Amino acid sequence: KHFSISVIAGDGIGPEVMREGLKVVEAAEKLHGGVRFSYESYDWGCDYYLQNGMMMPKDGLDQIRDCDVILFGAVGAPEVPDHVSVWELILPIRRTFQQYVNLRPVKLLKGLESPLRHKTHDDLDFLVVRENTEGEYSNIGGRLHEGTPYELAIQNNVFTKFGTKRILEYAYTLAKKKQKKNMTIATKSNAINFAMPFWDEIAKEIAGHHPEIETNIYHIDALAAYFISKPEEFDIVVGSNLFGDILTDLGAAIVGGLGIAPSGNINPDFHYPSMFEPIHGSAPDIAGKGIANPIGQIWSVAMMMDHLGFTGLGELIIQSIEEVLQEGLVRTPDLGGDSSTVEVGDAIVHKFKQL
Amino acid sequence: KHFSISVIAGDGIGPEVMREGLKVVEAAEKLHGGVRFSYESYDWGCDYYLQNGMMMPKDGLDQIRDCDVILFGAVGAPEVPDHVSVWELILPIRRTFQQYVNLRPVKLLKGLESPLRHKTHDDLDFLVVRENTEGEYSNIGGRLHEGTPYELAIQNNVFTKFGTKRILEYAYTLAKKKQKKNMTIATKSNAINFAMPFWDEIAKEIAGHHPEIETNIYHIDALAAYFISKPEEFDIVVGSNLFGDILTDLGAAIVGGLGIAPSGNINPDFHYPSMFEPIHGSAPDIAGKGIANPIGQIWSVAMMMDHLGFTGLGELIIQSIEEVLQEGLVRTPDLGGDSSTVEVGDAIVHKFKQL
Ligand SMILES: CC(C)[C@H](C(=O)O)[C@@H](O)C(=O)O
Ligand SMILES: CC(C)[C@H](C(=O)O)[C@@H](O)C(=O)O
Repeated sequence: KHFSISVIAGDGIGPEVMREGLKVVEAAEKLHGGVRFSYESYDWGCDYYLQNGMMMPKDGLDQIRDCDVILFGAVGAPEVPDHVSVWELILPIRRTFQQYVNLRPVKLLKGLESPLRHKTHDDLDFLVVRENTEGEYSNIGGRLHEGTPYELAIQNNVFTKFGTKRILEYAYTLAKKKQKKNMTIATKSNAINFAMPFWDEIAKEIAGHHPEIETNIYHIDALAAYFISKPEEFDIVVGSNLFGDILTDLGAAIVGGLGIAPSGNINPDFHYPSMFEPIHGSAPDIAGKGIANPIGQIWSVAMMMDHLGFTGLGELIIQSIEEVLQEGLVRTPDLGGDSSTVEVGDAIVHKFKQL
Repeated sequence: KHFSISVIAGDGIGPEVMREGLKVVEAAEKLHGGVRFSYESYDWGCDYYLQNGMMMPKDGLDQIRDCDVILFGAVGAPEVPDHVSVWELILPIRRTFQQYVNLRPVKLLKGLESPLRHKTHDDLDFLVVRENTEGEYSNIGGRLHEGTPYELAIQNNVFTKFGTKRILEYAYTLAKKKQKKNMTIATKSNAINFAMPFWDEIAKEIAGHHPEIETNIYHIDALAAYFISKPEEFDIVVGSNLFGDILTDLGAAIVGGLGIAPSGNINPDFHYPSMFEPIHGSAPDIAGKGIANPIGQIWSVAMMMDHLGFTGLGELIIQSIEEVLQEGLVRTPDLGGDSSTVEVGDAIVHKFKQL
């Protein structure tokens, strides 16, 4: 089997961690005789913007539309307003290719310690399913009375039945397939009194179709607190675009930091390419120093393998990461070590080849 | 001096913790010869709603408009949709009385341990200043195509220059007064691309007037993660209504849980009464059991004393809470003990009288 990957390394530490991710892709090919990956790299991002006045070419989305998957690094640079950089690159990709599921494991890898004093590996292993195309990230809004003391800005949260239903249904399907026993749904229906009761209504309807799965609906504020006090109670957590975004950075923080967390932007019906990216940003403060943690990117490659049907390869990659972490010798500074991005990547690839 | 307090104990555990809060008010009066408190109790809330079809009387706000301060317990019951219960009681109070500042300390009390493995008391002591009248809690929105597959719900985030400026200015004034050295501002301007760049613009303008204070603007997702990884870097954190809401429950979680965290809904110019309430909810699951932690309510009384100019009394109340916690004998179950709400209240009052 042959798969084509569109590689968008992007800005800041994006290219640095992407290099390590691609080493793992190549190693996977060698390990698994039956699979071939080809890739095309796209130099889109903030540098491209500074030269061309746009984050990608006008026909950018068409250029990558027919690939099998997209590997993404990170986007954002101090010189470009960040609503421009994301709304002209990553968010159009998510929306145009109907990557309506943003899948983010919150799992404490072997070899890492949680910053939560009383929580162990058994307590920290769940999945966040985030809506990825609508809601709070609407791109709809504007200003009035600009330049006066009466100026105001409005932005619409837009929740459709279509969009809300499909993400909740996906979450329940996943729960059944993986035999997860409970579902946690984020809301804020008390205060966000038009959009969120709508979300809850649909949630309750779909929960009703799955009586075998215990469902809890929590307000986002309390839920954020529960990520600290009782993460062991979660199996699958589903939330809107913004709530899922906040919960997954928080989730990353409780299992070892932003540097390790991966994500999949999934188009479940495979009509369009899905996209895999670490959840961290472009981290301009450490870009160019060669010390960014490549684990988030490499774990994202593992999720990509999963998505393409090579679950075994995905597992081996994670096992390689865990063994390197357990040995504890090669770590980037964010994990308390003094190794470089390349050294960590090499160590993981080395393990991977041996497994 | 004489002060009138409107007491709205509300629902669930509200009345249980309020009783303990009022004991502390009475004790304060005895301790401090020069101050008198009178109070009027209002039975508003979900029971009132179930009898009268509204959360408070039509002229409710007028009934309390002239008091000096409001002490609030909690609102919400399973029988009443929670957007009804909050939008007919607590949120109209916050908005009508221009309590535009929601002030929430995140401080690890002596005698408590943080769930964060590597963080000590020195690391956990900052203030969250939350916008409390607009933004994501707009009460503006609606639905279209109800009952069809094309149904959608829209809710507006509404940020005014007036509202945004005043909360940021308040935060900086506080920073200068308390000689705090840095300001952290929550945003999500990359994704929420109309409302949040507006917020940032105003933030940068006001930050510009305070060059002596270091300002950092972080995206809410990263900021939530930093609450776990580097809480010691914060002095004052300011955020929108929703972001402040999420951050403060998270803040409560890292310093010992929702049961202890207090808040002040402040009208800084004293044109209207300010309101003090624990940040926890009505907790229907434990209501009636007499085991709710009254510390959030009692600490809110301390904030009320502060607000009325009796800083000394406020400090003594906090000291009393801390001494009881340090002795470790009398604690409610959420803090690992088996004492009742009343026992904890009594222990704190007892200490308070001895100091
Ligand atoms: C009851 C609810 C509307 C409220 C809020 O979100 O403001 C509560 O969570 C709080 O933080 O005081
Ligand atoms: C870059 C930004 C728009 C993005 C988001 O908020 O979705 C990022 O934080 C993420 O979580 O993937």
